[in-house]
Amino acid sequence: AGLLPMLEQAIDMGMDVVNGLHEYLRDKAELVALAQKRGVQLIDLRYPKSQRSLRCWTGAVRQARCRKIAVLGTDIIAGKRTSMQLLCAAARKRGIHTEMIYTGQTGWMQGIRHGFILDATPNGYVSGELEGAILNCWNESRPELLLIEGQAALRNPSGPCGAELLLSADLDGVLLQHLPGRQYYQVCPSLRIPIPPLESEVALIRAYGGRVLGIALNGQGLSPEALGRYQQQLQQRLQLPVCRPLEEGVDALLDWQQLFGHIEKG
Amino acid sequence: AGLLPMLEQAIDMGMDVVNGLHEYLRDKAELVALAQKRGVQLIDLRYPKSQRSLRCWTGAVRQARCRKIAVLGTDIIAGKRTSMQLLCAAARKRGIHTEMIYTGQTGWMQGIRHGFILDATPNGYVSGELEGAILNCWNESRPELLLIEGQAALRNPSGPCGAELLLSADLDGVLLQHLPGRQYYQVCPSLRIPIPPLESEVALIRAYGGRVLGIALNGQGLSPEALGRYQQQLQQRLQLPVCRPLEEGVDALLDWQQLFGHIEKG
Repeated sequence: AGLLPMLEQAIDMGMDVVNGLHEYLRDKAELVALAQKRGVQLIDLRYPKSQRSLRCWTGAVRQARCRKIAVLGTDIIAGKRTSMQLLCAAARKRGIHTEMIYTGQTGWMQGIRHGFILDATPNGYVSGELEGAILNCWNESRPELLLIEGQAALRNPSGPCGAELLLSADLDGVLLQHLPGRQYYQVCPSLRIPIPPLESEVALIRAYGGRVLGIALNGQGLSPEALGRYQQQLQQRLQLPVCRPLEEGVDALLDWQQLFGHIEKG
Repeated sequence: AGLLPMLEQAIDMGMDVVNGLHEYLRDKAELVALAQKRGVQLIDLRYPKSQRSLRCWTGAVRQARCRKIAVLGTDIIAGKRTSMQLLCAAARKRGIHTEMIYTGQTGWMQGIRHGFILDATPNGYVSGELEGAILNCWNESRPELLLIEGQAALRNPSGPCGAELLLSADLDGVLLQHLPGRQYYQVCPSLRIPIPPLESEVALIRAYGGRVLGIALNGQGLSPEALGRYQQQLQQRLQLPVCRPLEEGVDALLDWQQLFGHIEKG
């Protein structure tokens, strides 16, 4: 409610407004009228697509012949999209033609060109919209590597996400984002629902037939020393690359040579 | 398109029309006008709820202090809802106060009173709507046993379903519906995507922390003898109750005494 006067002021100053909330600007008659008068755009990112424009899954995603890697998370607000952005930059620096698929409104705001808003999509069309976004990207720019943003968390009971990406996106592998310093799921805090051990999340991905390529750690709540120790121990325990993207970049996260054998530089 | 004249005729004869399709009757002006004239109802079961009426998951589902069992499937169109209906009847016959939660339009049409249309619900609200339906049912009738209809299939790439029920419904267990005579997923047939071994589906449910209580077999495509042999072998291999609901009922599917220790009859 306190937002409305600010929005009116912004529109009055001639600014377009991009809205990432589940509440829509187009439903507010006074804002719509003002926007028309000032000739500015109101963009409701989470407004549902029309029924007719939603796509069903057909398996055509397999025609996108590039490496496809999803970034999934053990909890929400964990840094999945940031790790994806860092990976994209690292891959491009190596000369790998890389694109990203957004699945949330922030990815769109960051300028990622292909994707869809997963949480606003009717459940029965999630796999099809995911496939469609991948195909749009493939058809437009023929990347070698496609990074796909995961949403929510594998097992957060307020809204799990993972199965669709693991089953419907023709993935080559998964990067798993984890916050060792967080004990309970981000959901009503009084519930104190423990985040399961990382090993069991890796096992869940494998139970779907997925391949975990590496683990990205968010150091929130841990000292640099504690994070470093955790990283070492985890790497030994899982026998997988484990990295701290914000502290050391993501270059160690993928076996680039194995995934893109043609690379000579880098 | 061929349906429209039939619908017009039905409305003209004074019949209400219940529509389970993703295409809505309320969008067809001529039908709406005719329905108004005749005073009949047009019900679009899959029409999305208004944004404001959708619920977020809060954990309140734990307040529904009854046994909660979901029926999940290894493929779509496998008999999940039918097994649930048979289980409901069997439980009621034993004197267990049992209710059901529908998650698809057919369950609503069959007269199940609480539920929601999972495939038409925006992904971010599936867990909350599921919780809300369970709480509505609990508040209204305080059942001892609540059976929850699964949608789609655990790993059909055209639209997997399972995680929300396993994580957000405070389940006590899962019944898994399976068709041993079907080799490939029901999806574009030319894709020939094999249905994974049943053991790996049980393992997936367990990877979510779920408990498989029993397996219900749909005999489609198998001779009675082949189905019987499969049942025997599976039961030995999994050490779980396995039954053929259509051939022998579902009474053997649950350890009723263990789940409802107070039962004396039955």
